[in-house]
Amino acid sequence: MKFSHTNLDKPFLYGLRFVHGHCHSEIGKDIFQTVIKCRAAVAWEPSKPLVMEEIEVAPPQAHEIRIKIVATGVCHTDLYHLFEGKHKDGFPCVLGHEGAGIVESVGSEVTKFNPGDKVIPLFISQCGQCRFCKSPKTNLCEKGWASDRYDVMSESDTRFTCKGKKVLQFMGTSTFSEYTVVNEIAVAKIHPSAPLDKVCLLGCGVATGYGAALNTAKVEPGSTCAVFGLGAVGLAAVMGCKNAGAKRIIAIDINPTKYEKAKVFGATEFVNPKDHNKPISQVLHEMTNGGVDFSLECVGSVAVMRSALESCVKGWGVSVLVGWTDMDDFAARPIQLIAGRTWKGSLFGGFKSKDGVPKLVNEYLEKKVKLDEFVTHNMTLAQVNDAIQLMQTGDCIRSVLSVALQ
Amino acid sequence: MKFSHTNLDKPFLYGLRFVHGHCHSEIGKDIFQTVIKCRAAVAWEPSKPLVMEEIEVAPPQAHEIRIKIVATGVCHTDLYHLFEGKHKDGFPCVLGHEGAGIVESVGSEVTKFNPGDKVIPLFISQCGQCRFCKSPKTNLCEKGWASDRYDVMSESDTRFTCKGKKVLQFMGTSTFSEYTVVNEIAVAKIHPSAPLDKVCLLGCGVATGYGAALNTAKVEPGSTCAVFGLGAVGLAAVMGCKNAGAKRIIAIDINPTKYEKAKVFGATEFVNPKDHNKPISQVLHEMTNGGVDFSLECVGSVAVMRSALESCVKGWGVSVLVGWTDMDDFAARPIQLIAGRTWKGSLFGGFKSKDGVPKLVNEYLEKKVKLDEFVTHNMTLAQVNDAIQLMQTGDCIRSVLSVALQ
Repeated sequence: MKFSHTNLDKPFLYGLRFVHGHCHSEIGKDIFQTVIKCRAAVAWEPSKPLVMEEIEVAPPQAHEIRIKIVATGVCHTDLYHLFEGKHKDGFPCVLGHEGAGIVESVGSEVTKFNPGDKVIPLFISQCGQCRFCKSPKTNLCEKGWASDRYDVMSESDTRFTCKGKKVLQFMGTSTFSEYTVVNEIAVAKIHPSAPLDKVCLLGCGVATGYGAALNTAKVEPGSTCAVFGLGAVGLAAVMGCKNAGAKRIIAIDINPTKYEKAKVFGATEFVNPKDHNKPISQVLHEMTNGGVDFSLECVGSVAVMRSALESCVKGWGVSVLVGWTDMDDFAARPIQLIAGRTWKGSLFGGFKSKDGVPKLVNEYLEKKVKLDEFVTHNMTLAQVNDAIQLMQTGDCIRSVLSVALQ
Repeated sequence: MKFSHTNLDKPFLYGLRFVHGHCHSEIGKDIFQTVIKCRAAVAWEPSKPLVMEEIEVAPPQAHEIRIKIVATGVCHTDLYHLFEGKHKDGFPCVLGHEGAGIVESVGSEVTKFNPGDKVIPLFISQCGQCRFCKSPKTNLCEKGWASDRYDVMSESDTRFTCKGKKVLQFMGTSTFSEYTVVNEIAVAKIHPSAPLDKVCLLGCGVATGYGAALNTAKVEPGSTCAVFGLGAVGLAAVMGCKNAGAKRIIAIDINPTKYEKAKVFGATEFVNPKDHNKPISQVLHEMTNGGVDFSLECVGSVAVMRSALESCVKGWGVSVLVGWTDMDDFAARPIQLIAGRTWKGSLFGGFKSKDGVPKLVNEYLEKKVKLDEFVTHNMTLAQVNDAIQLMQTGDCIRSVLSVALQ
């Protein structure tokens, strides 16, 4: 057995027992909770393939929930941490932050979740108590991992060990594991009939793009929008623009194979910057009599961020940073803003996470929000490296991995 | 006589007569209007002192108004064009865009102005007809000089000649002249009892800073604000924050002699970045539990623009570019916006010019808006180079030059 007691935090104080994954703990809130041994894809170091390992998942502590992850999407932010973040103190870790699952057990003080509840772990918490949670202006929360760890993007504490080593959690979640432990302020209980292999996408990408259009840009009926980048986040932004009542939705990507998919979500026009030998902002100005009302950058490129701003009409154009990057500065000339444009951004589409995700799940069940159309590949957790490669080559929108059996 | 007919646009077609300045034309709307010869400070080339010259001011054409300028402020934007813009095609010109005066005569089709009306020329027009004027979201206008000439900042057409040469107008106005001609869409008729040597400041600097706080930042009651730079624009921003009900107004300048003045306008705290050996954004974060709600950059420095954004609280902080510069890019890390901050800007404080300026004049007469306190020096147009020097050394807030006798 690879497990070593010495690497768990004082395990016998909690009266630990050990069970293997794929079986429910029936102990409930009994203090004699078990360490679960299960399969997870471990990122041992930056830029290397993930390795399927047996890991140990400690029981949930006070206010924590242990979740059996049933399905997870693979998001660019996972790849960013793996390939570009390269923070050595962020490894080894278990990536994945776009998952859905079922409560396996809960720690002490947890009153609103029970084993068997369908849930989505949240990389932005909602404690409900801090000044951010109390403000209607933001979805940030002062108590989650994200409040001060943007640099490392990894929880400094963790419930995972593997081969005697502490393995970090990622974005407070870690869904590339059959089991994970998340603080209750970062878990949303969802409708019991929700299909987990679809609604997992509301854990990051779809909520991010959709909310960026609705909550951050506040797209208006009859407006003209431009969406840069037609990955899952961009397509969700297109859907947000459409549901907000935009009249023209110009979808922009250097990969024209994405256009048909964009049409499904509501795009009305398509522009490939490679088809033009002038700046894309100029192309859009000519198409729209001076620029679009709203633009959404869903690539994560500082050059595209500039183009997206410059594509907006002066006076009232709003450009939103949606794609994630933090390696370089974004920039523009001051007149771009002085002439009346607004530059904004948001995390998780501005949705207050615990409030917003259950509502989005319901909207999916009511067919107001599309999810199935994002899923181009269904795979298993063991195929995560293939899914990562698909993402890198742009040959997929979203791969959904089945993780633990439901 | 220095004047040469050949340099006026077909003068005899208009039945021109010539009179000297300081005397009213009594011709009214008679087509036999006069060319006025008067004194103006001419900028013959970049970075050189202005030269007092006798210029010829053509009669107002259709929809134009010829104004006797009684008083003018000197604004940093004048200096910017003179010293930093260095667009050779912007010279020779008559600078000045913060003036007030009296209608001398009106061109054909002008129905809402009469000789004798007190007016403020506007560097942002308000035609009332274009899509910008019709939108409540912006104060830009598609018909003014500014709509497409940000680069040169000078009207390509002009009513001025001097020594046989065409002399350009600046920002559609040119108030460093005893007479100027402005399109009626860029003139505000103001209350007849308004003192022109005070309300001239509403033609640019004070409206710009005051409106940036009220209209662009939309400062909220009880909020915490930071104003970077305590020139006239910054002090007006402080006044805007106070009138909007801000609880804390932190005034920031590297020149501590400005603090007493800032207090007059409502500043509650003062920070000199030179007193700290850490970034000013960090100083402000520590003073305000994570950053200010609103910050206003009133310097015109891209480095300060970055500091102002970074000084805002995540989640809902709003930073506004108010100071003018366009020589370099402004920049920041994407997370600054993705964490929920908003970067905005405005021209002329977001006030629709013809609507806003008369109201601001009334607010001054009702003592809701301070103006007298901005004026540190009263001089004459002939002393304009001294006023420019005072501005460069930072030894004044606003110099007001008397131009023509009232």
